[in-house]
Amino acid sequence: MKAVILLSGGMDSAVCCAIAQSEGFSLYALHVRYHQRTSEKELRCAHALATHYHVHDFKELSINFLQEIGGSGLIDSSIELPVTEKDAHAIPPSYVPFRNSILLSYATAWAEVISAEAIFYGANSIDFSGYPDCRPRYFKAFQALIDAGTKDDTRIRLRTPLATMSKAEIVTRGVTLQVPFQLTWSCYIDPDMACGVCDSCRLRLKGFKTAGVTDPIVYRS
Amino acid sequence: MKAVILLSGGMDSAVCCAIAQSEGFSLYALHVRYHQRTSEKELRCAHALATHYHVHDFKELSINFLQEIGGSGLIDSSIELPVTEKDAHAIPPSYVPFRNSILLSYATAWAEVISAEAIFYGANSIDFSGYPDCRPRYFKAFQALIDAGTKDDTRIRLRTPLATMSKAEIVTRGVTLQVPFQLTWSCYIDPDMACGVCDSCRLRLKGFKTAGVTDPIVYRS
Repeated sequence: MKAVILLSGGMDSAVCCAIAQSEGFSLYALHVRYHQRTSEKELRCAHALATHYHVHDFKELSINFLQEIGGSGLIDSSIELPVTEKDAHAIPPSYVPFRNSILLSYATAWAEVISAEAIFYGANSIDFSGYPDCRPRYFKAFQALIDAGTKDDTRIRLRTPLATMSKAEIVTRGVTLQVPFQLTWSCYIDPDMACGVCDSCRLRLKGFKTAGVTDPIVYRS
Repeated sequence: MKAVILLSGGMDSAVCCAIAQSEGFSLYALHVRYHQRTSEKELRCAHALATHYHVHDFKELSINFLQEIGGSGLIDSSIELPVTEKDAHAIPPSYVPFRNSILLSYATAWAEVISAEAIFYGANSIDFSGYPDCRPRYFKAFQALIDAGTKDDTRIRLRTPLATMSKAEIVTRGVTLQVPFQLTWSCYIDPDMACGVCDSCRLRLKGFKTAGVTDPIVYRS
């Protein structure tokens, strides 16, 4: 029973990995780099998690095109990333246009080739940054795309087990599954010491605090 | 009025380009290489077509991952490609798993960044090789994915004007629009002289013959 897992190196991907493994899947990890600011650090974390979880295969995919077309503060350092609470309904500048479709399309291609039954993706639609391609209706649409665009005898389920969990619930679940959170990275901005103030750091810190768990990584502020 | 067009260098992409231009779109051409056997030749044809149609921008995207995961005779020369009529319902070994979703996801990302209104893709569901990701229901699913996965104020229409045309009708339409068919390439196997016997050559030859038009490129057999 095989599953492709998108392993970014972030805490959600780590918890998702633990869930997939607990269900008995043999894991095929796909790590995607797209010149985001902290990509080297994320790759090291993904490697460490892959080793920890004894994944069957690890593939690294480098995407230059997203940098070439621009349009995201995650990639283009001339676009400022927010460090304060934002309008809950606005899409922040860290949004990378249609990124998840690119990632999931590669994952599906690989899943079809190795006859995997599932793709695990640690996306979260509760404590998230409001990206359109993280909403439940988006993942439903992607499942329909898989069903329409693969061979008729292919059965691949897109699994997003964290989709409806709060960040605190993800932390709690991770603790139960003994996830090595010290091997994960969330900061969008600084690859050496987490800034503590970007969207991603704030969501992570809030999650650990609400769960009553100490985050093992060190923050600047 | 901008449109991203997937410009492979094949005859369908050329006719599609002519249609998009005739509708008044400013064209942003995306050429994708994925280590298929005739990729160098296809790139030269795509460049020639881009020059002919005065595209506003031309981007070349190289995908290594499809070669890395294998699974297609278009990429892996150890997999034999058919040179005879096949079972009409079988998916041939030239199928590249989920390739179109990867291509269209990149096209959508670019379209969203430049605020394009359309993506033109010269896919054809009549005289085609039976790939699951060329069927009408697949393109309908991809449109739903675009709608779900882009910002709410983004309006991108996925246009497949050749979808319901026969190859002969595509040739006839191309002749009407003065498409330079001599600048296009279709052969899956030989980048120097079209083999005349692979799936793609046979569909092309049949189309020109039925349309009563002479194909300007030279064939070996």
